[in-house]
Amino acid sequence: MKSEVTVMNHRMRLLLALLFACLTQSLAQTSESKTLQERLGYPISARLLVIHADDLGMDHSVNRATLEALEQGWITSASILVPCPWFPEVARWAKQHPNADLGIHLALTSEWTDLRWGPVSGAGRVPSLVDAHGYLPLDTPDVARNAKTPDVEYELRSQIDRAKNAGIPLTHLDMHMAGMVSSSELFGVYRKLRDEYKLPILLEASGTHGPPAGISVSTDEVTVQRVVTMEPGVAPNGKDWLDWYKKQLAPLPAGVYQLTVHLAYDDEEMRGATWDHPDWGAAWRQRDLDMVKSAEFRQFLKEQGFVLVTWKDLAKARQP
Amino acid sequence: MKSEVTVMNHRMRLLLALLFACLTQSLAQTSESKTLQERLGYPISARLLVIHADDLGMDHSVNRATLEALEQGWITSASILVPCPWFPEVARWAKQHPNADLGIHLALTSEWTDLRWGPVSGAGRVPSLVDAHGYLPLDTPDVARNAKTPDVEYELRSQIDRAKNAGIPLTHLDMHMAGMVSSSELFGVYRKLRDEYKLPILLEASGTHGPPAGISVSTDEVTVQRVVTMEPGVAPNGKDWLDWYKKQLAPLPAGVYQLTVHLAYDDEEMRGATWDHPDWGAAWRQRDLDMVKSAEFRQFLKEQGFVLVTWKDLAKARQP
Repeated sequence: MKSEVTVMNHRMRLLLALLFACLTQSLAQTSESKTLQERLGYPISARLLVIHADDLGMDHSVNRATLEALEQGWITSASILVPCPWFPEVARWAKQHPNADLGIHLALTSEWTDLRWGPVSGAGRVPSLVDAHGYLPLDTPDVARNAKTPDVEYELRSQIDRAKNAGIPLTHLDMHMAGMVSSSELFGVYRKLRDEYKLPILLEASGTHGPPAGISVSTDEVTVQRVVTMEPGVAPNGKDWLDWYKKQLAPLPAGVYQLTVHLAYDDEEMRGATWDHPDWGAAWRQRDLDMVKSAEFRQFLKEQGFVLVTWKDLAKARQP
Repeated sequence: MKSEVTVMNHRMRLLLALLFACLTQSLAQTSESKTLQERLGYPISARLLVIHADDLGMDHSVNRATLEALEQGWITSASILVPCPWFPEVARWAKQHPNADLGIHLALTSEWTDLRWGPVSGAGRVPSLVDAHGYLPLDTPDVARNAKTPDVEYELRSQIDRAKNAGIPLTHLDMHMAGMVSSSELFGVYRKLRDEYKLPILLEASGTHGPPAGISVSTDEVTVQRVVTMEPGVAPNGKDWLDWYKKQLAPLPAGVYQLTVHLAYDDEEMRGATWDHPDWGAAWRQRDLDMVKSAEFRQFLKEQGFVLVTWKDLAKARQP
């Protein structure tokens, strides 16, 4: 009997071990397949939304509008154009607001005509990144055509490092005028900087903020299911403007999204900067500002049950 | 008789030759000793005045005020901060106003805290000209202490060349925050650039825009007898402000002078740039703008008989 009991015990132990292994495996699988919203403690049906403003640092008008929007919670995140003249104002504000969610708006273009900026590392150091006047070129195709990868890496590291050295705690990287997805070489640098600085990058599966044609990315690399951002063509009045945003956001299924806005005041400075370029210009940005701060939009987000999150939140959910 | 006549003729010729030589010499001496005002066709008692605004390009507020003042004739000349973000707006305006009197405001400092600029040749190329953040330092003593002459020459040539390449016809060179007279080395570069680019430099015999201590300059090198420019301490109201300028200008003896003003609007942008630095700040510059455009100041200049001139005029008078 004693030996039979021993054999039984032995079998029981084996079975228990197998059961434990099986359960562990199953649990692990469950954790791996959990959606980002679940990993942050929200139901699988939740819709997470980063409300993000681009172009911090560009000028004082952009800074005034965007920093107020961050303080008031009208937006949850923003990213900085480091080569721009008003970057120091952002750095000072960031010290006073250490929990603000700020990223780097990696910049290889300088798109206005009367207000321009060059590479922070200097035209002579990165000659393939500048135009005949020593500024970053006006548009992304010029970058994709001329930029040499070592220059791109050097300049973008300089931009990130300048922000880090100024004491800004960074939460993410994204890109000015979709520059980093405009060629496979630039996209390679984008991924490299992500891994090097251990910061999430803005990347949707496809679309203007998706990988370049012919490049496939793993599901895990995609950080947001879609970037909702306005392109030219919407009627320039408050009602149509707000309606456009509502129509984009309302039908979104469960998942993680970024709403990208461009905030500034329609003031002398901003009109001066954008006088020959109404798209994303002074009046456009004032309408975006009016929209994010409006009671109607805030109420819409609440009714729709959007969960407002930051890039810091998204990064946490991705940690193993 | 014939031989006597011949001798007489010979003597007459000799005397005439001597008289001619004497007259030529005397005329030459008169031309050399002529004052600048006489060489421009004004009486020796005339008072010539360049009304000059500094800092073009710094921001849109400065550009708006200064370019309007040039167009309206409230000022006769201005100089440009080439490393600043709004330099392209100045370049575009200059193309539309090819007769405008524009110089380079040679810059080795970036004095505000929220809006800053770096060297146009890049921090890496001229490391002795930048602070820990990659910008030109906040004040002139830092420049005099750290700047290496080859870096200074390279950067200032880059500033002048960028303006020339942008198609701006330059009339003179002067200096931001009296940087070029803050050490004998920097003053050496100032003279060198004058000779190299064949452009007059702003230089008074002594004072904030005079040569550094211990350096003597020839009378011919001095381009203006005095620079009249406000320093902190004047009561900030329109009447005292205007009175200060009148009191400086009224007693000036005959000669050539520069009145240096700083023009901008007291708007959000300018208040943002100068928020922690009321001297030469937004309100200060608005008062200067109100002063130069006021009917009272225009009337005062007329009554006092000041002859308003440009740097282009002064250069003409100096040509041999």
